[in-house]
Amino acid sequence: MSEERHGVRHGVRSSGGPRKSQEIFDATLELLAEKGYEGLTVEGVAQRSGVNKTTIYRWWPSKGALLGAALTGARQLDLQPPDTGSLQGDLEALLHAVVALLTAPPSSGIAVSALGAATHSPELAVHVREFFADRLARELPVFDRAIARGELEADADPMLLVDLLAGAAWLRVVLRQLPIEKDFVSRAVSTVLHGAGAAG
Amino acid sequence: MSEERHGVRHGVRSSGGPRKSQEIFDATLELLAEKGYEGLTVEGVAQRSGVNKTTIYRWWPSKGALLGAALTGARQLDLQPPDTGSLQGDLEALLHAVVALLTAPPSSGIAVSALGAATHSPELAVHVREFFADRLARELPVFDRAIARGELEADADPMLLVDLLAGAAWLRVVLRQLPIEKDFVSRAVSTVLHGAGAAG
Repeated sequence: MSEERHGVRHGVRSSGGPRKSQEIFDATLELLAEKGYEGLTVEGVAQRSGVNKTTIYRWWPSKGALLGAALTGARQLDLQPPDTGSLQGDLEALLHAVVALLTAPPSSGIAVSALGAATHSPELAVHVREFFADRLARELPVFDRAIARGELEADADPMLLVDLLAGAAWLRVVLRQLPIEKDFVSRAVSTVLHGAGAAG
Repeated sequence: MSEERHGVRHGVRSSGGPRKSQEIFDATLELLAEKGYEGLTVEGVAQRSGVNKTTIYRWWPSKGALLGAALTGARQLDLQPPDTGSLQGDLEALLHAVVALLTAPPSSGIAVSALGAATHSPELAVHVREFFADRLARELPVFDRAIARGELEADADPMLLVDLLAGAAWLRVVLRQLPIEKDFVSRAVSTVLHGAGAAG
């Protein structure tokens, strides 16, 4: 992966962006949800966020770079890895967060727009890939703690477990376009941890 | 060329479409993959399939209706439900089919384009929803047989199991954009049937 990391220049704040980064990210994601990737412009982001266009370009040389930074840096899409004391609890919290991301505005529009746009734009696809890699990295402590507690074998595959759970939510919400039942999260996590096969 | 085929409009088949339905569906899905939903036109389908535009309109009054029919009727996306004799075998066959759909051309382009377009077009979204409902209906015998064999409890939730497995493939291929490892299918199915939790 040869992705350039933003905020590696001199004079960068610790958070790696101009002072109004969050306003810029919010405007970027809102415009993506409203207009799609084709309709997203740095000009539009400047207008909505009230930040000068040249300032935005100084930090992010293209709208693709800006959107990549917004996907991993925006508060709206932030993920706080849970620590409930059990793997079942942590995975339920993670899956609830995915369901909320996909169903609660404004992030629902953002997630679905980003996905739709990524399928048509190789540039955006790179940033969607980074977004998911970033999230997995933040989720790993959940699995490390579960292994330490003896709830998971040491050779468990966190990415597979996340993909089963989060993938089910994406499929149910975005593709099937069905509501998430009340017990969807607990049943999905139980199935992945304990299996659906008959005990006998 | 389409003018020469004008007589096709009289060649109605009992299955509810003109004689050259498969050519029309193929052209529809190819154009969707190449141009996206916005670029898909009944005119373009007529040109590529060699079927008169009025014939197509007679059967499908809009491009949305045509695409809906193509998604569930095209050979390229056809699903033959497996019957391997075991639930593990059947689910592996189903998941292999999903992985092939998502990774092997031409269906991979179709699936990803349809998904991307569905997120922007309420009309297409209806047909994507129908596509997934149709597939689940075809998959149900796998679960009925597993319950009859005692491999699944009678109150098992087929949709949840399908969404865990197929969702993982969608997430891995379309969103993470990572290759599917050789043992992805068998490990995903084992996890869903037997659980990832430590035995102890």
